[in-house]
Amino acid sequence: MGKELTSRSTDYAQWYNDLVLKGGLADYSAVRGCMVIKPYGFALWENMRDQLDRMFKDTGHVNAYFPLFVPRSFLEKEEGHAEGFAKECAVVTHYRLKNDPNKKGALMVDPDSKLEEELVIRPTSEAIIWNAYRDWIQSYRDLPLLINQWANVVRWEMRTRLFLRTAEFLWQEGHTAHATSEEAIAETEKMLGVYADFVENWMALPVIKGVKTANERFAGAVETYCIEALMQDGKALQAGTSHFLGQNFAKAFDVKFLSKSNQQEYVWATSWGMSTRLIGALVMAHSDDEGLVMPPKIAPLQVVIVPIYRGDAEKGLIDNKVAEIVKQLKELNISVKYDDSDNQRPGWKFAEYELKGVPVRMAIGPKDLANNVVEIARRDTKTKESVSMEGISFYVKTLLDEIQLNLYTRAKAYRDSHITSVDTWEDFKKVLVEKGGFLSAHWDGTGETEDRIKEETKATIRCIPLDSLEESGVCVFSGKPSRRRVLFAQAY
Amino acid sequence: MGKELTSRSTDYAQWYNDLVLKGGLADYSAVRGCMVIKPYGFALWENMRDQLDRMFKDTGHVNAYFPLFVPRSFLEKEEGHAEGFAKECAVVTHYRLKNDPNKKGALMVDPDSKLEEELVIRPTSEAIIWNAYRDWIQSYRDLPLLINQWANVVRWEMRTRLFLRTAEFLWQEGHTAHATSEEAIAETEKMLGVYADFVENWMALPVIKGVKTANERFAGAVETYCIEALMQDGKALQAGTSHFLGQNFAKAFDVKFLSKSNQQEYVWATSWGMSTRLIGALVMAHSDDEGLVMPPKIAPLQVVIVPIYRGDAEKGLIDNKVAEIVKQLKELNISVKYDDSDNQRPGWKFAEYELKGVPVRMAIGPKDLANNVVEIARRDTKTKESVSMEGISFYVKTLLDEIQLNLYTRAKAYRDSHITSVDTWEDFKKVLVEKGGFLSAHWDGTGETEDRIKEETKATIRCIPLDSLEESGVCVFSGKPSRRRVLFAQAY
Repeated sequence: MGKELTSRSTDYAQWYNDLVLKGGLADYSAVRGCMVIKPYGFALWENMRDQLDRMFKDTGHVNAYFPLFVPRSFLEKEEGHAEGFAKECAVVTHYRLKNDPNKKGALMVDPDSKLEEELVIRPTSEAIIWNAYRDWIQSYRDLPLLINQWANVVRWEMRTRLFLRTAEFLWQEGHTAHATSEEAIAETEKMLGVYADFVENWMALPVIKGVKTANERFAGAVETYCIEALMQDGKALQAGTSHFLGQNFAKAFDVKFLSKSNQQEYVWATSWGMSTRLIGALVMAHSDDEGLVMPPKIAPLQVVIVPIYRGDAEKGLIDNKVAEIVKQLKELNISVKYDDSDNQRPGWKFAEYELKGVPVRMAIGPKDLANNVVEIARRDTKTKESVSMEGISFYVKTLLDEIQLNLYTRAKAYRDSHITSVDTWEDFKKVLVEKGGFLSAHWDGTGETEDRIKEETKATIRCIPLDSLEESGVCVFSGKPSRRRVLFAQAY
Repeated sequence: MGKELTSRSTDYAQWYNDLVLKGGLADYSAVRGCMVIKPYGFALWENMRDQLDRMFKDTGHVNAYFPLFVPRSFLEKEEGHAEGFAKECAVVTHYRLKNDPNKKGALMVDPDSKLEEELVIRPTSEAIIWNAYRDWIQSYRDLPLLINQWANVVRWEMRTRLFLRTAEFLWQEGHTAHATSEEAIAETEKMLGVYADFVENWMALPVIKGVKTANERFAGAVETYCIEALMQDGKALQAGTSHFLGQNFAKAFDVKFLSKSNQQEYVWATSWGMSTRLIGALVMAHSDDEGLVMPPKIAPLQVVIVPIYRGDAEKGLIDNKVAEIVKQLKELNISVKYDDSDNQRPGWKFAEYELKGVPVRMAIGPKDLANNVVEIARRDTKTKESVSMEGISFYVKTLLDEIQLNLYTRAKAYRDSHITSVDTWEDFKKVLVEKGGFLSAHWDGTGETEDRIKEETKATIRCIPLDSLEESGVCVFSGKPSRRRVLFAQAY
C-alpha cells in the first residue's frame, strides 16, 4: 500500500508529516505556505469547532462576521499591533487583472486598478472589529459585547509546517468589550478556562495555564494568558491564548461609552483565539509509529466494523448482524462505519484504520457469529479481545470513555514527568538537551535575560503558571534575585 | 426608538436597507463593498448553513478546505473562467508592509516583498481545487469525489448592496469529480434539487428550476442550472446555481483517471454554490412594512415571551409560569427567549421583535395568569389570540408549522400570479413595467436577441424552465420561430 511511516525515533518531524499526509488530514497546496485541509482532517476540525462553539454560546457569546480586509491605515492605529503584524501580511494593491497584450492567453495586473489605500488580509481582526465597535457602543447598556468570529486569517510566515505554521489558517477569534477593567480581566480568564476545559476534556491533552512574559505578549495586549501543552518530543506548544487588551484598541479607534455615572469612558477589551494549529498538537501528542490516535470525543469516526468472510453467504449473515450493531451504536450517538468494500483485504483495512486513528475497530467473522461474539481492538493500547454481542453498544460506549481517559492519563503522566526543576545554568542546558520538556526555573524578570537564554538554547519562557507559588531564588542565568519560577521550553 | 422604517411603496430599495440595518442583520463596514454580518444575521446564516450542510452530508458529500489564494497562472488555464473572473478580483502583489521613512507612525508597502507571481483572492475555487484533484485522482476507484467547501470569496463588484452584492461574501461551493458525463449531469441535477428543497421547505420561498442560456452561463461551464425566486417588487433573484462543467477543468488542469477499461480519460466535473445573498432574498420575499418576517424553520429565534406587570410580586408570579413554558418549549426544540429586561416597556419590545421578524410573540400579564391563558401574536398575519396554557407548547409547535406553510403559500400565490404569458413585444414591455414578475415568452434562441431585449428593457432570461413544454411560436422580439417559452424578468 506504500504507506510506510517514518518512526518517531528515526525522524520525529518526518513522522509528523507522514501522519498528516498519509493519514489524510491535509495536503500541500500549490500556493506557498498554504495547505489543503482534506475531508478527514476537516471532519476533525468540524468536531473541534462545533464543541468549542457550543462552549462559547453556553458562556453567552454570539457569532458574527467581519471583513477579510483591513485597510492599511487601520493597522497603523495601534502601534504595538502594527509592529507585530505589518511585517508578515498579504497586501492587496489592485482589484483587477487584464489580458496581457504581449502574451496570448496570459493575464497581468491592470495598473489602472490600483487601490488608493492598500488592504491587508486580516492577520487577526482587532483593527477592523474595533472600528465597527465604535458605532455599536454608545452606552453602558450596550456592554458587554461578547462576539466571536470563525474565520480564515493570513500571516506570511517564512517557514511553514502543515497545521503548525501555515500562511493561511482557520481559527476563531473572540472580541469582547466591557465597561470595566475587572470585567474584561474576568472575561479573559474565563475564556482561558474554556480553552483549558476543551483541550483537556475533549482533546485529552493536559495543559498548563499561565501568563506570557512581556516579550511573548500579543501585539497590542496588556496581558496575554495562554495554555501550554507538551508534545512527545519534549517540545511545548501554545494551544490557545486569551488577551486582556486594556483600553489600547478603544483608544486607537476612539470607542467610548456613557457610563452609569454619565461619564464618557474608553471601553475595555479582550480577544482570544484558537486555530487549526491545535490539530498539529493533537497529532503530536497522542499518535504513535502506526499512525494517528484520535481521542474518541472528537474523532471523525469512532468505530469501524470490518467483516471477515468467504463468499456471499457468509457475508450475508455478517451483514445482518452488523446492521443490528450499527443501529444500536447510532442510538447511542456513536459514529460508526461498516467497511465492507471488496477491493481491499481485512489486513489492509486494519492498517488503514490504525493509520487514521479510529479509536475502536470491530472485526466479525463466521466463527464470531457462531459464538455470538465480536473481536474488538483498541487503537490506543492496540489490545484485542473477544466480546459478547449482548449489550455490545453499551460496552463500546464505555470503552470509548475509557480510551478518552487513557489518552489523557497517558499524556498527563508524560507531561508531569517532563517538568523538571532546575537551579543552575549547567543543569538547565543539560536537562534541555537530554530530557527536554518544561524546565521550572527562576528568572530575573528581564527581557534581556530571556533573549540571552533563547539565543543560547532556543528555549523560551512558555508561561508564568497561574498556580506558581512565591519562592525566593536566584535567576538560573543571571544569578539575580527572583521571586517565582517560570516554565521554559523549546517550543513549536 | 428612532427605528422608523421606509415603507415598501415609498421606496422599496430603502425599505430593504432599513430592514437589514435596523433589523440587526448587517452593517456597512469601513472597507469598500464589504459588510459586517451582525450577530442576528449571522445566527440566521448559521441555521441556513447547518441545514444545507446536513443535506449535503445526507447526499454523500464531505467538507474540505482549500487555499484562499489562486495563483494568477491558474486563473489563466481555463479561458472562459479567466474571462469571467479576472476582471473583478482582489490581487495580492506583496507580502509585507514596512514603516514609512517619510511619515512617522505610517506604514507602506515594502517594495522588496513583491511576489514573483500575483495571488488572486478566490472569486470561486475551481482553479485551485482542480489543481489539487490532479494529485488525488488516479483511478476510477477514486471517483466520484464529492467535496464541498464553506468559505469566503471576493468579487470586486463596482456597485454593491448589503447581502445582495458585496465584494466579499460567504458561501458554499461543491466541487465534484466523476467518471462519466452522465454521472456528472445527474449530480448537477441532484444538487439543484437539494437547493430547491432547501429554499422552498426551509426558507418558504417557491422557486423555478431551469437552465441558463449560454449568455448567462457560469464562466467555464457547459450547462448552468439555476433556481429562480421572485421578490415582492416583481424582480427575480437567482437563489442558487449548479454547473455541469464537462471536462473543461479536467483538461485545463490535466486531471485524468484510469477507467475500468484501462483507458486514461479526463474527469467530468460539477460545481454548485449558494451564498449569503440568499439572506437578501429572504428579507425581500417575506418581510413587510413593520420589519423582517422570519420563516420559523430557520429563524434565529422562534418565540419571544414578554411579561406585562407592575411591581416585583406580579413579576415573580409571571416568572414562575414562564419558566414552565420555556422548559416545555425547549423540550420540543423550540428556541425561545424570555425578555424580562426592565429598561424598555412592553410596547417597545413588541415593535422590536416585530422588526426582527420573530415568528411568535407571547405576552403574559396578571390577568392572563388568573385565567390560565397567554396572548399569542403571529408575526406573519399580525393576528393575536388568547390561548389556554394547557398544552401550550404543542400549540406553539403547530403554530410555527402553520406560519412556515403560510409564508410559503403566500409567496407562491404572489409568484404564481406574477408569471405572465406574453406574445407581443408591446405586451412584453407593458407587462414588465406595469406588473413586473416573470414574463413567459418565446425567444429565438440567439444571444443577440437576448442582448437587445436586455438593452431595451433590462430584462434578462432568468431560465429555460426544466418543466417547459415544447410549443411552436415566434420570438417576442425578432419574430423568428421558437419551440418553447423561456422566463424573462428584471433581476437582482
